[in-house]
Amino acid sequence: VPSKDDAPEAEGLWTAIAPEAARKLLLAALDSFATHGYNATTTRMIAQRVGMSPAGLYSHYSSKEELLYTIALTGHEMLLAEIEAALDGLDDPAESVQRFSETMTRWHARHHRLARATQYELRNLARDHFEEIRSLRHRFEEIVHGLVTACVRSGQCSVDDVGTACLALLSLSIDVARWYDPTHPGAGDLGAGHAKIALRIVGCCSNEPSR
Amino acid sequence: VPSKDDAPEAEGLWTAIAPEAARKLLLAALDSFATHGYNATTTRMIAQRVGMSPAGLYSHYSSKEELLYTIALTGHEMLLAEIEAALDGLDDPAESVQRFSETMTRWHARHHRLARATQYELRNLARDHFEEIRSLRHRFEEIVHGLVTACVRSGQCSVDDVGTACLALLSLSIDVARWYDPTHPGAGDLGAGHAKIALRIVGCCSNEPSR
Repeated sequence: VPSKDDAPEAEGLWTAIAPEAARKLLLAALDSFATHGYNATTTRMIAQRVGMSPAGLYSHYSSKEELLYTIALTGHEMLLAEIEAALDGLDDPAESVQRFSETMTRWHARHHRLARATQYELRNLARDHFEEIRSLRHRFEEIVHGLVTACVRSGQCSVDDVGTACLALLSLSIDVARWYDPTHPGAGDLGAGHAKIALRIVGCCSNEPSR
Repeated sequence: VPSKDDAPEAEGLWTAIAPEAARKLLLAALDSFATHGYNATTTRMIAQRVGMSPAGLYSHYSSKEELLYTIALTGHEMLLAEIEAALDGLDDPAESVQRFSETMTRWHARHHRLARATQYELRNLARDHFEEIRSLRHRFEEIVHGLVTACVRSGQCSVDDVGTACLALLSLSIDVARWYDPTHPGAGDLGAGHAKIALRIVGCCSNEPSR
C-alpha cells in the first residue's frame, strides 16, 4: 500500500527522463529499493510493477545497478542544483548558511525516500559509478566548507573546529531522510527551524539573520 | 578483508553472551549485515563464517531475524545504559546536554558498524520485535526531551521549538554512524566537539560548561 506521500514525490521526479517507460522504471525501482532494500529487489520485480517483461527493462537499463546509479546520480544533481540556486546572489555568510540548511532539509524531507535509497545503498554501486557519485558528494562538502569559512572570516560567527561544524551542518539535514515521515509537520517549517539551528552551529547566537 | 577497526569493536561486544558459539554467531551476523546488508545475508553465510553448519546456527537462534533482533536489542540496551551512567548524578541542565551528546557520539563512532546495522535495518524486524525496539527508542526521545526542557526552564538556554531541537541533538550523534570511518580523528575528540555543538543547539552560546 503506497503511503500518502508517495504521489507528490513521484509527480516531481524525473520529468525530463524520456521515454515515459524509462521514467516509470526509475519510479518503480525507487519504490522497491525504498520499501524492500536494493538487495531484496530483483529486476523482475521492478519490471512487473510497470507491467513490463525483464527483457523490456533491459532495453532501457542494463542492470539493477544502473537503475540505482541513475537514481543516485539524478538525486545528487537535483539537490546540488537546488542548493546552487538558493545560494545564488547571496553574499552574507550567515544568511547563506541558513539558506543552505533550509534548502538541504526541505529537500531531504520532501524526497526522503529518494534520499534514503541514495544515502544508504551507495555501497551497492559499481566502483566507477561510486567514484562518480563520491566526487559529486565532495562538491557538497566544498560548498559547506566555503560557507563556514566565510562565516568565521566575517567575524559574525565562531567555531571551535571548521570540519566538525561542517559535518554537523550536513548531519542536521541528511539525517532527516532517516526519521522523516509525512505525519511530521511540513517540510517547510522544518527547513525554517533548521536554518535557525544552523546559525547556532556556526556560532551566531542571534535567531535573526544578520541583516 | 576485515578493516582495522573490526578487531577493537568485536572485542567489546556481547562479552556476557554465553555460550561462546552464540557470541561468535552474533559477531559474524553483524559483520555480514554491515558488509552486505541484511537482505543479502543468509543464515548459511553466517554459519560458515564461524565454521558451523546451518543446523548448528539454529540450535542458538531460530532465524536470521532473531539474530538481527538480538543485535538491535543489545545495541539499544548498551547505549541506554551508557547514557544513564553518564547522566547519573548531574543536575546542571546544560552540562547534562553536553554529556548526553558526547556519550551518544562516542558510542556511534566506536560502534558505527553495529549502529548502522541497528539504525538502517529495523524495517526487517518482525512486528513484535520492531515494537519492542521502538519502545526502547522512545526512551531516548524521553531523555533528550527532558534534558532540553530542563535547559529551557533553567533560563540558561532558549530554543525556538523543543521538538526540533531534540531531533537536531539526536541527528548530530546518530548520523555519525552513517559517515564515520576510522581514518577520522578519534571518537573522543568528536564527542568533545559535539558536546560544544549540542550546547549551541539548545541556545547556550558559551563554549564553556555553565559551571
